[in-house]
Parts: sequence; structure tokens; C-alpha cells
Amino acid sequence: MAENNNSSTSWQQSAAQKRAAVHALIPDAWRISQVPATEERLNIAGDYIRQLLSIRETEITETEATDILAKTTSGAWTAREVALAFCHRAAIGHQLVACLHEIFFDAAMAEAERLDEYFAKHEKPIGPLHGLPVSLKDQFHVKGVETTMGYVGWIGTFQGKSDTAKEKVFESELVRELKELGAVLFCKTTLAQAVFTFEPLNNIWGYTYSPLNRRLLAGGSSSGEAALIAMRGSPLGIGTDYAGSIRVPASLNGLYGLRPSSGRLPYQGAANSNDGHSIMSSVLGPMSTSVGALRVMVQAILSQQPWLHDPLVVEMPWRAEDHISRRKLSFGILRQDTEVAPHPAISRAVNLVIAAIEAMGHEVVQWKPPLHAEMYQLKNEISACDGGHNIHGDLRLSGEPPVSRIPMTFGTEPKEPMNAMEIAALHIRKREYQKEYMEYWNSTAKVTSSGRPVDAFISPLIPFTGMRPGWNRFTVNSSVVNVLDYAACAFPVTVADKTVDVMDTGYKPRSERDAYNIAMYDAELYDGAPVGLQLVGRRLQEEKVLALTELVADGLAEMRC
Amino acid sequence: MAENNNSSTSWQQSAAQKRAAVHALIPDAWRISQVPATEERLNIAGDYIRQLLSIRETEITETEATDILAKTTSGAWTAREVALAFCHRAAIGHQLVACLHEIFFDAAMAEAERLDEYFAKHEKPIGPLHGLPVSLKDQFHVKGVETTMGYVGWIGTFQGKSDTAKEKVFESELVRELKELGAVLFCKTTLAQAVFTFEPLNNIWGYTYSPLNRRLLAGGSSSGEAALIAMRGSPLGIGTDYAGSIRVPASLNGLYGLRPSSGRLPYQGAANSNDGHSIMSSVLGPMSTSVGALRVMVQAILSQQPWLHDPLVVEMPWRAEDHISRRKLSFGILRQDTEVAPHPAISRAVNLVIAAIEAMGHEVVQWKPPLHAEMYQLKNEISACDGGHNIHGDLRLSGEPPVSRIPMTFGTEPKEPMNAMEIAALHIRKREYQKEYMEYWNSTAKVTSSGRPVDAFISPLIPFTGMRPGWNRFTVNSSVVNVLDYAACAFPVTVADKTVDVMDTGYKPRSERDAYNIAMYDAELYDGAPVGLQLVGRRLQEEKVLALTELVADGLAEMRC
Repeated sequence: MAENNNSSTSWQQSAAQKRAAVHALIPDAWRISQVPATEERLNIAGDYIRQLLSIRETEITETEATDILAKTTSGAWTAREVALAFCHRAAIGHQLVACLHEIFFDAAMAEAERLDEYFAKHEKPIGPLHGLPVSLKDQFHVKGVETTMGYVGWIGTFQGKSDTAKEKVFESELVRELKELGAVLFCKTTLAQAVFTFEPLNNIWGYTYSPLNRRLLAGGSSSGEAALIAMRGSPLGIGTDYAGSIRVPASLNGLYGLRPSSGRLPYQGAANSNDGHSIMSSVLGPMSTSVGALRVMVQAILSQQPWLHDPLVVEMPWRAEDHISRRKLSFGILRQDTEVAPHPAISRAVNLVIAAIEAMGHEVVQWKPPLHAEMYQLKNEISACDGGHNIHGDLRLSGEPPVSRIPMTFGTEPKEPMNAMEIAALHIRKREYQKEYMEYWNSTAKVTSSGRPVDAFISPLIPFTGMRPGWNRFTVNSSVVNVLDYAACAFPVTVADKTVDVMDTGYKPRSERDAYNIAMYDAELYDGAPVGLQLVGRRLQEEKVLALTELVADGLAEMRC
Repeated sequence: MAENNNSSTSWQQSAAQKRAAVHALIPDAWRISQVPATEERLNIAGDYIRQLLSIRETEITETEATDILAKTTSGAWTAREVALAFCHRAAIGHQLVACLHEIFFDAAMAEAERLDEYFAKHEKPIGPLHGLPVSLKDQFHVKGVETTMGYVGWIGTFQGKSDTAKEKVFESELVRELKELGAVLFCKTTLAQAVFTFEPLNNIWGYTYSPLNRRLLAGGSSSGEAALIAMRGSPLGIGTDYAGSIRVPASLNGLYGLRPSSGRLPYQGAANSNDGHSIMSSVLGPMSTSVGALRVMVQAILSQQPWLHDPLVVEMPWRAEDHISRRKLSFGILRQDTEVAPHPAISRAVNLVIAAIEAMGHEVVQWKPPLHAEMYQLKNEISACDGGHNIHGDLRLSGEPPVSRIPMTFGTEPKEPMNAMEIAALHIRKREYQKEYMEYWNSTAKVTSSGRPVDAFISPLIPFTGMRPGWNRFTVNSSVVNVLDYAACAFPVTVADKTVDVMDTGYKPRSERDAYNIAMYDAELYDGAPVGLQLVGRRLQEEKVLALTELVADGLAEMRC
């Protein structure tokens, strides 16, 4: 049973002790004497952090993941040198923007040395991820390390339970596979409380800000991953996505992030909120600075045959089909799916993507899907099906308060949970929505020039340009993909530009939510903020989604030249 | 909302009217004047039914499904002649052993004629199932035909609801695909009440007996399919399997029956009990007289890309890998998984299979899996999670009583349903059992000579030789596969032989259930009853399971030569 751990200590004290314990794991040489004031230095990801590193460390940490692998798997770079550089940069990054829940640099260095010894002896890499540092959202259990998932009450326990014999011993299936593949795990990253909100906030570390603009938030719930990778403190991280938790922070920090369909990658043995509530499933996926990095990670995990170790993974190896050459592709374009009008930079991003697609000789059609409003409603009902018993139970372990939108969704007390018939009705509604939506997708064969249904659709993830502290009633557009269980990839398109992205002052808000989104707008504040979109494929089409996202990214890069 | 249809009529009257309406669809020329007394003629499947058919009709109907397709897709046989022969034989069969819920011979003949016209015009078949008659368990909606699923209260409605505009119009996705493929649908078959029990009994048609021995039952819940195919009134049928409902009746009637993993074949738009209760899923699968027939059906359905029309189907086309040649295979052998000792013929069947496998140069190892007892318990809890609200609701539409084991499981009144947390706990327990089981499977690499895990395991489906009316407290061994969601195929091995299959009179029953199973034994009654087993592969390994079942079947045939 769940127990209140250490009832004589307040949750504030426990959280402070935890922060201090993590901080103590940063070597003295890597401590920074002061953090610049926010207003003085909004962006600490680039030049600011570079001056605290050697040129060599900067070179290594600013190398894209697949290029790192080219070096580490050929012996050009040692795993040790690479790991050391990323540990150093992550340590500094965390001091600038709190983004780490757990630090295990010593274990990482020991592992890197073991890899180097292996390479020296066998003259080949141990696996396809040989020597690649990989960061993990703090839901994955790593031997020797705690998992708090942002709950104060989980400190010193295994998922809130004491004396399970699993504390700091049990490993998630993904972690076992990453180690087999030669990855060097070195830290676990912050997340939003209960892995539930998009606002990156929990009672251990508070907010996770965006390192690109510390007046804005990193987004969530995979907030620490996005912040860390944006600072180049990690070349590649693993997040999770229940309603947009990989894609939204990736988008807000100028990164790529894949939300695979459920059953593709192994969630076995990871911590989660609402475990067993299976109408919609949280999935894990990679976040990085290139599509190539995401592909390498998915391919590597699938090479481990995760379906032999996770009963929910389908036996589907990486499928190396050619999805893009020798034919004209069609993309559905969805500019807006609620009454909330996107900020100007997001609409401009959509226009840029259309131009890039058309410049490559491919086609765009309007995406006019059914049921988005119904699916947002359904997602809310599904999320709340247990009346908040799970989340309130974990909060009560320490007495810490719910934060961000959790009180709005779950109140301050657990409510009556749904019963078996109500849950079955949600399953059926979801299936019926999925069916209607897939038939809409099929029907687009009538509007494309090829006579085939669209290959993917592209849409905003959020209608706002940056996430502002204190403004947590924002609208998001990502969770439709989760209800549908489609594969989707967030990708960066542009950055907000105050001189170009001017709000239409004559616009009449269509609802309170629309007005809220307009009120969030601050051209000055948002100037320079990354703007991303998502590319969405059908269920389990991860390969195709990555191929098409890469195509669009290449098209955008071509346009910028 | 569900409504009591026609409250002025008793359920007995409604059922009698339904029986009469179905009987009226049998052409006069096909009516038989009398059914022989059971004791006089136990087996009516072979010689008895043949004397009521022409030699040509017998030739056609006793041709195996893939051989029929060789004729119909090459134009050697017309679809019309084939359809007519099967309609005739099914009509006679139904009069001998009640096995049909719906008859639509006229629509079948019209479709067959359309296919013949297509062939005449295009000189090629319309699809891979061109002209193959296919029967369906009465869960699949076919245009122009009712679906009662054995519920009196569903007569004249759509799944118990009136004025839905779907009555006799809506079609299940499978049905749409079968029509596209060129199959000729001609009848729907009986099932056990609520698709829930293994005892083949509902309030419309009563028991479905085995046509091979009318003192025994056909098994369930896909009882009509098994009886009809055993009489050669259909070359291939589609059943469903939640806990063994394809495999148990297939086994009791000397047939092959595939239980695919969930998500492989399209259940979209089929009627079911407990729809939306998704911890364990009912799946559909083919039943026939050969493995080849099952394979053709699975391949044909997958060629329709069901994942584009059923959101729960995974994008996994037929995988044409070679699973058997050029290596030594290993099979786990499970003789018994509860305290209930199998009847002698079943143990002999296991020995025959071992001998066949070893004679082919392959290997058997003992299958010593964990958790079978726990999984039987879990399956019972999952089945009852709604407290019987769904089943009692459908029974109350007409006032008909629950039959067979339904009152034992659900009482006569709905009980308190489980809540969201209890349901989540069942999901977690299931996943944990699946995980432990798959790791056991992986661990068999240590005991095989190849150093690879076993390729499949083989086990009994039931510990008894035949199902006797009135003896419904029998034990079954099939549902572990459903909890694990593994692919499995029932296959015939031998027939019971009273001179060989002698019960050990010194055996001391280990429990009440064990004693019950022994008490069921009657060597005289069971003489000649088919005895089957199942071959079980991992999740979604339908191709491999079919290949290995065919290998074992060929090995058994070789031994009999």
C-alpha cells in the first residue's frame, strides 16, 4: 500500500532536500557561481552556455545525434569524451534552467569507459547507439537512481511504495534496451506534475523555463527533455505523450518530437499516472534536433524486438519502405480546429509549410475533418474517469498541493469514479470517432490529384506562440492525435518575428477561450520564439511520418537558402 | 434505448415465430419429412446426409475450401452450382441439427449468378474468394438479414434497439470485405446465449448437437459453425473467440479453427456481448476442414487492408515468411494445466502429436508455464466486470431466462459493476501476467537444442472427450490463450476409441472438478468422438501458427499412412 513517507518532514522540506541532493551530484568544477538575471539574458542556450565550456565540448555537444553516432561507432570519438561533454553541459544547463530530476554522471562515465574498452578490444561498436548520451523523462526507472515523477511523496520510494525491493534496482524495459544498444544514460529530466499538464510545473523543481527565452516556459509534460535538448545538454531524449506531452514542448523549443502510436515502443515497466486506465494510452517517443536522430532511435529500439519483452508492443520491425520518391504526395492542411484563432506566427508557419510542399512539386489539400470538438470532450472525460483517485492518492503521500490545471480537472478531493458501463461507453465512443475519422481520411481520395487519400496532414499543436507563466488556461490542439492513436511528429518551422507577426487588431474573439489566447499575445515577448507544427500519419505509420517530416523539413531548409 | 419489443407476445412465442420464419426460408424441395431418432442414427454428418443429395452435390460439398476455390476461380465450377449445393446441404443439415439462425439462400444465389456473369464477361475471378460459400456466426450484420445473436429480445431490432435505421441495412466490416473478395454468404449460424458459454444453448433454437454424434453437443459458443462445417453444409465459416469459442467447438467436431490475436482481423461493426469492455477482446477467426482454408481466408481478409476501415486493426499485411524449412523446430508440450486430468483419448492425442513431431526430426520440450491458475481466475473477474448489466439487459428485452452457466456467473439480477480503479487493476494484472509468461517463453531458449525459444506450444483445449447435455460444469483450458492474446489454432488429432482409451480406475480425483470430469467419462458414448488440441504461437504470429499447425497435421497424416 501507498504510505506517507517520513511524516515528520513537510513536503517543502522533502522537496528542498531532494533539490540539494541532486545539486550535490554536480561536480564542484561544474558549478556556476551565478545565474544571470532573466531580463539581462533571456536566451541562455547558445552563446551564454558556450562560454562556460571548452571549444571541444562545444563542438561535441553541438553535433547532431546521428553525426555523434558516426563518430562514436567508428572510433573517431570516444564514448568517454562525448559523455563528459554532455554531462558538463547538462550540469550547467540545469543550473541555468531547472530541468533535471536525477543526475547519474558517475554511472554514465563508467558505462562510457566500458564501451570504449569494448571498442578497443573488438574494434566495433557494441550496438547501434554506441556512445550516444541519452536523457530520459523521469518516468523511466534506471538502476541506482530514484524515480519521483515530480511527486514529493515518491522520494525515497518505488512509485510511492516503500520496501518493495524495487527501489533503485528495477529497470524499465526501455532502459534495458537502451543499455543493450550502447546508449549512455546520464540524467532524468523534469516533467509537469502527474505527467498531466502542459504547464511545466511540479513541487520539487517548480517551473521549467525555456532556455531560449527564460520569460517563457518550456511546455510540458516532457518539459525537462525539451529544455535540456534545446540547450544541447543532451543530443536525444525520451519523452512521453498522452495528449501532446512530447510534441508541445518540442514545438516550443524548436525541436523534433515523435509521438508513435501505442504498441510500437515499449512502455513496460515505466512509471505513469493512471496506470491501467487503458482507453487512451501514454506512449514514449524520441525528441531531438533532427528527424534523422528520431529515426535512428526508433530503428534501434525496434532492433531489440521489444515485442518479446513488452506484451503491449506489436511485432512490427522497422519497415524500410520508400515513402517519398517517384510520386506526387498530398498533404492535408488544417489551419485551425477550434474557435481559438492561432497567433500570427503559427499561421505564417502553416503558409511556409504549404509553400515548401508546393515548391517541391507536391500537393496540399484542405483538411476538413469531423469530430475534433467531440474528441477534445472525450479526451477530458477519459482523463478524469477515475475521479482523480490516482493523482490525489499520490499527492497525499506527501501532502503537497495539486498545481496548474490539476485542481480544475480533479478538484481538491477525489470524486466518484466511473463504473464499468460508463468506461465501456467511452471505449465505444472512441472507436466510433476513430472509425468516422479514418473514413474521412479515406474519402480524401476524391480530392487529391492522385486519387489516393492524403499521405499525412499538417496542423498546429497549439494556437499560441509561447507559454507564459501564470497563463495556464491556454488551448491546445494536440490531443486529437492521441484519441485517434495516430503517429505524429512535431517539427520546427520558423521563429516568431515581432516585425512580421502582427496581430489583427480588428479581430473579434469568438469565445472566452479565443479572447484568452489573444490576450496571451505579446509580440515583444514572443520575438524569436520557435514555432513548430505537427505532421500526422495514420496509426502505426511511424516510418512514413518520419520520412514525410524529413521531406518537409528539407523543403523548409531549401526555402531558407 | 433498449426496448421490450412486442410486449404482448411471450418470449416463447417470439422464439417459435422466429424458428418458423427461418424454416419457411427452406425451399419445399429441400424439406425432409422426418429426422431419424437420435439413438437410431447418432452420426448424421456423412452417409445419412449424402443419401439426401445428388452425387454431384456430394462431390461439391465434400471438396475442401481451397480446392473449391481452385475450381471457382478458374471457371471449372460455376459459383451458382457450388452455392446451390451448399445451400441444399446446409438446409438439410439444419433440419437434422439446428445450427442456423438465419437463412438467405436467395441472396446467395443472386450473388453467385452475379459472380458467374462477372467471370463470363471478364474471364477472371472477382477476387480471391470468388464463389466460395462462407457461413457466419450470428454476430455479423448482413444487409437484408436480421442479427439476433441468440437473444429473443433482438428479434426484429438492431442489437435490441428499434427504429435505428440500421435494421437489416447495416453491414459489419468483415461482411463488406467478404463480399468484395467474392465470397458467397448464405447463412448465419447458432451460438451459445450471450456468446458467453461453451455449452451450445440459447432460447431460440435450444441445443446445437454435434452432427457426428447427436448424443453429444457441438460445443460453443461458435456452435452452429462447427456443426454446419462438420456436416459439410459450409466449406468455411467465421466464428468468434473470447475464451475458446472458436477452438473448443472446432476441436469437438474434428475441425481446424484459428484464434488470431486481437487487432489482426476486423471486428468493426459486429454485434457482441459486453461491447466496449476492452480488457480482453473477442476476436473473429476462420473454421474449416484444413489449415489451407484458414490461411486463404486470413490472407484474403488482410488483402482488403482492414486497418483502413477498422480502427482496432493493426497495419500488418500477410507476412509470407518461411517458418518451417531448413531448421529444427521446438515445440513445448503441455499435457495438463489444472488439477483436472484429461480423458484418456486427449492424453493419447498428445502422445500422437509428440510422435509425429519427433518423426519429422523436430523437438519437443516440456512446457512448464507460470500463472495458468491465476489467468483462469483473472479471466472470470474480467468477464464479470460489469456485474452482468449488459447480458441481463438483453435478456430482459424479452423476459427470456438466462441459460447454462450464465446464472452461475451473473446470478439472475445485475450486480454492482466494478469501478474505474478496479478495472485499471485488472488491466495491470493482465499485463503483468502477460509479461511474466512471455519471459517464461523467452527462457525456453535454455532448454531447446537450438538455443532459441520454442516455436510454439501444444496443449489440450478441454480435458473431456465430448460435451454431454446436462453436464455443464465442465472445465476448459482454452482461455489462458485469450488472456495472453496469443495466436492459436485448434486442430484435429484422432478420434476416441473405447477399446484403447480406457480410464484408469485407480485414479484418485484431486478435486471436485477433477471428479466431475471423470464422472463425465463414458467410453461407449464417446467412441468415435473427434479429439483435437491447440497449437499456440506468440501474439500476432498467425502466419507462423498456421504454418506449424499444417506441419503437425501433415506429420499426423504421415503417421496414419
